[in-house]
Amino acid sequence: MKSSLQTIILQLQQFWADKGCLIGQPYYTQVGAGTMNPSTFLRVLGPEPWKVAYVEPSVRPDDGRYGENPNRLQMHYQFQVILKPDPGNPVELYIQSLEAIGIDPREHDIRLVEDNWEQLAIAAWGLGWEIWLDGQEITQFTYFQQVGGQSLDPVSVEITYGLDRILIALNNADAIWDEPWNETVKYGEIRRREEYEHSKYYYEVADVERLRQMYDLYRLEAETCLKQGLVLPAHDYVLKSSHAFGSMDARGAIGVAERQACFSQMRDLSRRVAETYLEQRKEMEYPLLKDTGSQVSHSQVTGSQDHQTAQPVHLQPADFLLEIGVEELPAGDLDAAIEQLKVNVPKLLDEYHLEHEAVRVSGTPRRLAVLVERLAARQPDRENLVKGPPAERAYGPDGVPTPAALGFAKGKGLTPKDLEVREVEGGKYVFAVVKQAGRPAAQVLAEALPVLVAGIRFDKSMRWNESGVAFSRPLRWFVALLGETLLPFEYAGLTGGRTTRGLRPYNSPEILVPSAQAYEGLIKQNGIVLDVEERKTLIAEGVRSLAASVGGEALMPDELLAEVANLVEMPTPLLGSFEPEFLALPEEVLISVMKKHQRYFPVSSASVSRATGDPDTGKRNTGTHGTLLPYFVVIRNGDSESLDLVRQGNEHVVRARFADANFFVRADLKHKLEDFRPRLATLIFQKKLGSMLDKNDRMVKLAESLAPILALTDVERANVQRATFLAKADLMTKMVVEMTSLQGVMGREYARRDGEDPAVATAIGEQYLPIPKTKTGLALALADRLDSLTGLFAAGLAPTGTKDPFGLRRAAIGIVQPLIEHAIDFDLRDAVEKSARLQPVEVSAEVQAQVLTFITGRLGVVLKDSGYRYDVVEAVLAEQSDRPSAASRAVKQLSAWVARPDWNTILPAYARCVRIIRSAPAEERAIQAVDKTSLEEDAEKSLYAAIQATVHKTPTSLDEFLAMVVKLIPDINTFFDKVLVMAQEPALRQNRLALVGQIANLSRSLADLSKLEGF
Amino acid sequence: MKSSLQTIILQLQQFWADKGCLIGQPYYTQVGAGTMNPSTFLRVLGPEPWKVAYVEPSVRPDDGRYGENPNRLQMHYQFQVILKPDPGNPVELYIQSLEAIGIDPREHDIRLVEDNWEQLAIAAWGLGWEIWLDGQEITQFTYFQQVGGQSLDPVSVEITYGLDRILIALNNADAIWDEPWNETVKYGEIRRREEYEHSKYYYEVADVERLRQMYDLYRLEAETCLKQGLVLPAHDYVLKSSHAFGSMDARGAIGVAERQACFSQMRDLSRRVAETYLEQRKEMEYPLLKDTGSQVSHSQVTGSQDHQTAQPVHLQPADFLLEIGVEELPAGDLDAAIEQLKVNVPKLLDEYHLEHEAVRVSGTPRRLAVLVERLAARQPDRENLVKGPPAERAYGPDGVPTPAALGFAKGKGLTPKDLEVREVEGGKYVFAVVKQAGRPAAQVLAEALPVLVAGIRFDKSMRWNESGVAFSRPLRWFVALLGETLLPFEYAGLTGGRTTRGLRPYNSPEILVPSAQAYEGLIKQNGIVLDVEERKTLIAEGVRSLAASVGGEALMPDELLAEVANLVEMPTPLLGSFEPEFLALPEEVLISVMKKHQRYFPVSSASVSRATGDPDTGKRNTGTHGTLLPYFVVIRNGDSESLDLVRQGNEHVVRARFADANFFVRADLKHKLEDFRPRLATLIFQKKLGSMLDKNDRMVKLAESLAPILALTDVERANVQRATFLAKADLMTKMVVEMTSLQGVMGREYARRDGEDPAVATAIGEQYLPIPKTKTGLALALADRLDSLTGLFAAGLAPTGTKDPFGLRRAAIGIVQPLIEHAIDFDLRDAVEKSARLQPVEVSAEVQAQVLTFITGRLGVVLKDSGYRYDVVEAVLAEQSDRPSAASRAVKQLSAWVARPDWNTILPAYARCVRIIRSAPAEERAIQAVDKTSLEEDAEKSLYAAIQATVHKTPTSLDEFLAMVVKLIPDINTFFDKVLVMAQEPALRQNRLALVGQIANLSRSLADLSKLEGF
Repeated sequence: MKSSLQTIILQLQQFWADKGCLIGQPYYTQVGAGTMNPSTFLRVLGPEPWKVAYVEPSVRPDDGRYGENPNRLQMHYQFQVILKPDPGNPVELYIQSLEAIGIDPREHDIRLVEDNWEQLAIAAWGLGWEIWLDGQEITQFTYFQQVGGQSLDPVSVEITYGLDRILIALNNADAIWDEPWNETVKYGEIRRREEYEHSKYYYEVADVERLRQMYDLYRLEAETCLKQGLVLPAHDYVLKSSHAFGSMDARGAIGVAERQACFSQMRDLSRRVAETYLEQRKEMEYPLLKDTGSQVSHSQVTGSQDHQTAQPVHLQPADFLLEIGVEELPAGDLDAAIEQLKVNVPKLLDEYHLEHEAVRVSGTPRRLAVLVERLAARQPDRENLVKGPPAERAYGPDGVPTPAALGFAKGKGLTPKDLEVREVEGGKYVFAVVKQAGRPAAQVLAEALPVLVAGIRFDKSMRWNESGVAFSRPLRWFVALLGETLLPFEYAGLTGGRTTRGLRPYNSPEILVPSAQAYEGLIKQNGIVLDVEERKTLIAEGVRSLAASVGGEALMPDELLAEVANLVEMPTPLLGSFEPEFLALPEEVLISVMKKHQRYFPVSSASVSRATGDPDTGKRNTGTHGTLLPYFVVIRNGDSESLDLVRQGNEHVVRARFADANFFVRADLKHKLEDFRPRLATLIFQKKLGSMLDKNDRMVKLAESLAPILALTDVERANVQRATFLAKADLMTKMVVEMTSLQGVMGREYARRDGEDPAVATAIGEQYLPIPKTKTGLALALADRLDSLTGLFAAGLAPTGTKDPFGLRRAAIGIVQPLIEHAIDFDLRDAVEKSARLQPVEVSAEVQAQVLTFITGRLGVVLKDSGYRYDVVEAVLAEQSDRPSAASRAVKQLSAWVARPDWNTILPAYARCVRIIRSAPAEERAIQAVDKTSLEEDAEKSLYAAIQATVHKTPTSLDEFLAMVVKLIPDINTFFDKVLVMAQEPALRQNRLALVGQIANLSRSLADLSKLEGF
Repeated sequence: MKSSLQTIILQLQQFWADKGCLIGQPYYTQVGAGTMNPSTFLRVLGPEPWKVAYVEPSVRPDDGRYGENPNRLQMHYQFQVILKPDPGNPVELYIQSLEAIGIDPREHDIRLVEDNWEQLAIAAWGLGWEIWLDGQEITQFTYFQQVGGQSLDPVSVEITYGLDRILIALNNADAIWDEPWNETVKYGEIRRREEYEHSKYYYEVADVERLRQMYDLYRLEAETCLKQGLVLPAHDYVLKSSHAFGSMDARGAIGVAERQACFSQMRDLSRRVAETYLEQRKEMEYPLLKDTGSQVSHSQVTGSQDHQTAQPVHLQPADFLLEIGVEELPAGDLDAAIEQLKVNVPKLLDEYHLEHEAVRVSGTPRRLAVLVERLAARQPDRENLVKGPPAERAYGPDGVPTPAALGFAKGKGLTPKDLEVREVEGGKYVFAVVKQAGRPAAQVLAEALPVLVAGIRFDKSMRWNESGVAFSRPLRWFVALLGETLLPFEYAGLTGGRTTRGLRPYNSPEILVPSAQAYEGLIKQNGIVLDVEERKTLIAEGVRSLAASVGGEALMPDELLAEVANLVEMPTPLLGSFEPEFLALPEEVLISVMKKHQRYFPVSSASVSRATGDPDTGKRNTGTHGTLLPYFVVIRNGDSESLDLVRQGNEHVVRARFADANFFVRADLKHKLEDFRPRLATLIFQKKLGSMLDKNDRMVKLAESLAPILALTDVERANVQRATFLAKADLMTKMVVEMTSLQGVMGREYARRDGEDPAVATAIGEQYLPIPKTKTGLALALADRLDSLTGLFAAGLAPTGTKDPFGLRRAAIGIVQPLIEHAIDFDLRDAVEKSARLQPVEVSAEVQAQVLTFITGRLGVVLKDSGYRYDVVEAVLAEQSDRPSAASRAVKQLSAWVARPDWNTILPAYARCVRIIRSAPAEERAIQAVDKTSLEEDAEKSLYAAIQATVHKTPTSLDEFLAMVVKLIPDINTFFDKVLVMAQEPALRQNRLALVGQIANLSRSLADLSKLEGF
């Protein structure tokens, strides 16, 4: 008997009602998620407890697929649960709820995949997971940290079920459409036409101008409500504005800057709604704070049998175990924690004077395990010597302690008898000997372990209960044993015990750990592979052999292998397949879906050398692989029970995702790439700077005028023109609207399919790469980036502080780095000026200077990041920053000079010249010709002669310049030793300054050596 | 243990899921009712079956009470059920669902109260009931007949539970706020603040201009969607526009004309949405038509044991019973049906030649009973004579039948032998004797009864199943017995049986009726009072005695008594009370709530003679009663079990209603009446005619200029000014916004409380009465009505056909009737002209004439309705229509004349004069002086003399005029007998015409007697 949507809903309602949740109703305004319902958005704020569950039909215009995708819908049904505060076992409750609707964890692969949830429009974030069922995301599980800009205390647990996908998974179906709503009606019979109509509306019919007006009306009405302290009406209008925004966005009518502006407005409103609500609840004295009796106390989670056994006293060294039980750690956090523990454990044991043998640290997503062999049963006794006054001042001639000695002893809590005289550094001093008896290791560890756990740092950490402790994910148990002895300690609301937990698919059974020694065996018995490297090896072998079984090779980049190894405790690889038709999709799309979205290992035919761009990272992928095959390898967390079910589930997912991509590509291919270009007019780049079409038009002109600077051939020039003309058209394609990361990639693919010149297609594809490979791609990218920088600076949108919403830092780096790589002599000043002339707003000389300074700043960073010395980079950039390639060469040369052993003779000599010039009065610094006849002393004359002999022309590189300096050194030094430059007689003085100036000025346009260390 | 909202919802979901309903979700746009959800609005259209149930949070801005009212909320929770087609027993299913949530019908008073549901904005209507639980409306139950302008086939049953009120009732609570949402949280804790905020928003904060813009944007977007055939997006925008409209309305920003315009727009859109949906489903070939197996067949409802008994053959007369079982009939329809049956049953039995003795027709809301005593067992045998050709043509001289006779006989299916010759009207004719054997009564009745039932007519009737039969409410069973014999017949999908049903509170038990004779006894045994008059008597006695028990008298108008008697089958009166504080509310409000809304009998102290206006009907109430007491009498349908529970329930209801009124009045009394006046500027009267304030300003000026015509004293004049100035202010008060029927009444009350002159207050109160009693009130009313007529005609909004959205017919009647009653000589032409000059639009002479013609038309209707002869009215109005009072007097006088026995001498004489003039050539008709010297004949001379003697002045009344005519009759007649008026000699002829013309013209400005019959 198939499950039906309504049965699932009724069962979930009953399940959560039985757990004390209030059953609410969907909200009466279109929302993108149950989170926006006031039952979540507002109620998670403030100290009042709250438990609620409700269905939320969630509308996301750009998820519309005209009813053609198996599981992608512009409206899907969420089931939303909020538990505030954290009940201590929310993941377990969640898995029970899955069982209540008929999902047996043993028969599936239930995976908690890191998800750092963030919603800019409501200034909210939290940490948690996507929960996957056989590769399908069926739930979002989040510990809210902040909502409406307010830090949450207590934290709320949000569980958001995707009911449609659960229905598909439960019925092991391909698609949602034929699944039962109830016993007589199918889902598709109710909703398919609706999906078609709304998709058509959102993508084709909605009137953008009207939506924009609605957006503004809603926003203003929200303002009005806020002024009157009306939280709920204000919130309602914020939601309405958000939906209007989403509708415009689906029409592709929102440019980068407009998006920023709208988000900022919505975020601001959300924040004020939240603040006003909090004030209101405070005034009302938090009416729901009445009763707290019904809440589960956190310590209940730890089994009660833990503390009943009598504790033997340890006398001999014993193995020590600390297991930190945690809800599924993100892959990166698991690695980070292990690394830190590897360093911190020995360090801590040393600090605490506990001797030990080998330390092993390992872990899985749910546990960090520290094993220390033969840890001493107690600290050694120790003496602490504290130095006091000199002996001669401490004792009178009669040997009687002076007041100085008495005071010192008293200060240490000793009597004078306890003082000893010892000889230190050749003097005699009084010492207080503070004896410290070694404490039992158990006692010490009880103090040390909280410090150890607290010392683990993560990039992002979260709070979850009233302890206020922050960790990557909630800590749920500790096992701490010294031999067989339980080490009692408390941290984060938990008490150390001897109960660990088994695999999720087995319902996380409690496992009693009798001793530290027994731990690894027990864990292994329970199917868990504790060691990361061991898991990696197992996975790699499995993946390879499955790929080989279909005559292919697995694409197994290190990052993916490392991530997958950290997603499972018991890896079981399985092979899935998909319809070969999908191979017609661009490879980047397929790989991106499999690797990034699904963490699958793609399978290709035998390797050939070939490079492709990785659309996810934007980085060049230097790996080589053959043609993709219609297979992939999944790593299941669990054993091989019902493996076919798991495989089918995963295949359904990948099929749906590919179908989705296919939907877009097919739709896009109805038009030529060029046809999309005019629609760029609807995409606002920035209010003052016009539409994306305007920007693209400017790019075309700019690229043309950059052609001479880049010394392009006629063919290249034509290709640059064409590529730049088409460059942004793919932004209006459905595939890119859907997966922005494919911008450029799709342009390239569509251009190829349209029969454009391959160089044009390649250039389009390269425009978003940090360093385009072809010159054509480079020209296009430069035009794009220069236009953005010049225009946005002129529009007053230069980055400030850490804010860089338009990615202008990246744009600047994207100018200088390729120029260096391609070694093109490119004058930025000229380029910025050309771009400035094309802007629809005035770009003053001052702004142009700001742009150049900004780019120079980035150039400096790039050079320093390449390993060049700070001072060398500064010295060069002070004189030549407009030509990154030249600057880079100069830095390289100067670096070589600075590294020379004789540099300490070169720089001082040259510095003397520069310094004397700088110390002269301003009016005398001006370089004038040297009056040869006025040279009086030999040293002057010979310096003059040396200059004449050496400096035949103005040096054009650091090498030339410094080679000249080297030749001049003897004469320079003699000159300064013998001649008084600053002679009293003005004519004499000025002539000498002119002479020295000829040397000092040699570095002009090359470097300002005074910036160098040692100058 | 108290019930909780969420338990009720979960139970209802489960109940209806078990009945095969699809469980849906609330809609994601604000709707006023679950009806607007596409799951209802669209799915009830077309032939596809559909069963659905869902919660719908329903938003009605003007129901907001700031969380102060016990059960009135701007957002309430509906539970909506749609059953399509009618399952045959939906009321029973509904009552089972109440039991499922814990409502025992035996302990409550469950009442089905007529409700003719209509929703203009979606062009929908249906018939059904409000379902009351102890006086509280908890459910709307409707058989949809039309939605979106489309007639429904099949009809859908809509059940809309009011969950909040059910919760109150279930917990026997006073108010919703402290009732449980679930076991830990109260309703008010979740929703009270929300109610406050939204109320404040809708009433005080919402920006009307923005709402208006939203309304327009939504409307336009709906248009756009419709053009693309997108049903659901279009419907969504229609709903949004509807909510924007509702929000503006709550702000009091919608005038009469704007309301009309918006409704018309929304209705049009809804109709097009429905049409487009129907087309779409047709194209899709009605996918949900797949299976019909699960539907209950209608005949199953009739018990199966009915037809099993062997039927005895009747030989002797026996009593006959027809019981028509029906779902609760509206009170008026019950009366109408009984009246018709009383006439039709004997008529039908006569037609069918069935002899019988007494016929008794009686009924209750659920049954119509016809009892006929001693109905003949069979028809008598009869002969039918058919007249043929004359005997002489039928037989040859030899007595052989001619072809004529043969043909005649054959035509009747006889042989010539069967023909007889009989003498008729003095001639001999051949007759065919068709003998008809009497058939058994049972057989005849089986044919006749469907005809009888089908012959019952109602003002409004409905369809409910595929028989297509229309009736007031669904027919559910028939009992038809002749003695003990079951009379089998079929009608409306039902078969006659012998099972009737008992009282609803006893779960309508099936009752087997063994014989017609046993019926009345059985019905009585089952507690049902079959006879209407008997119920009335029981009720009246009970009400009187309960009122007396608290020292009061019941207000028991006939209509109320008649209605209540038709709402119950087993009347049990009970006394309820309310807080005496509420007596401070205006009496009209209290009475209106008790009588009109609740069908309670109010209780007053001992009578004193006094007249009050009845706010509901706008008619003068001539009853007299003392001061109201804080009591009322309810008639329960059922016995006295749990009577206290029923009383408490009813008291809660009345308390909530009074609290509601109190809320408004208290809010209003924070301001003076005059303070509301400026806000009239926000209420648009009509786009071209400005705001209600503009209209009121015009009224003030018009009233002032009418003062001389009405011959007002200075004091009256001042009062008229003040009253007119304040007249419309109460439209902006909350109480009137809530109950429009209290307009004028509240103005009066508030004016009194503000210390205005009593005459001013009275006039304000009288303005909406058909006939204001005071001259001040009259002046105000005239100014109002004249302004509306003149302005709206000028704006092109004159009534057309049956459409009269502004009630201009009523306005016109409201001008002429009071003028007649008050006998004021008032020149309409002058008044219209004065009003025209004040309008902001041009009112052309042509339009003014149209207005006058329109008013004259109404004047004619009024006069004819007063019983005057059509022709008399026409005759008078042809000459004097501008002065209604004078016209009325003239009609009265002329009527008296027409009734005189000698009228047939008066009219002809006068007519001769008029006719001869009319027959003369136009150029000779002009009245000229009579040249006395040219009179030739005696008859001329004596007529001339008679005129000289009689007509001393132009007659100013019909009486004067006709008295003159009477005197002239002999001379007129002689003149016409002797004198040739149309003499050949022109001078002579014209002189004679002039002479006759002097008489003919006497009626000028009085009446055109040629319009009279007999002229």
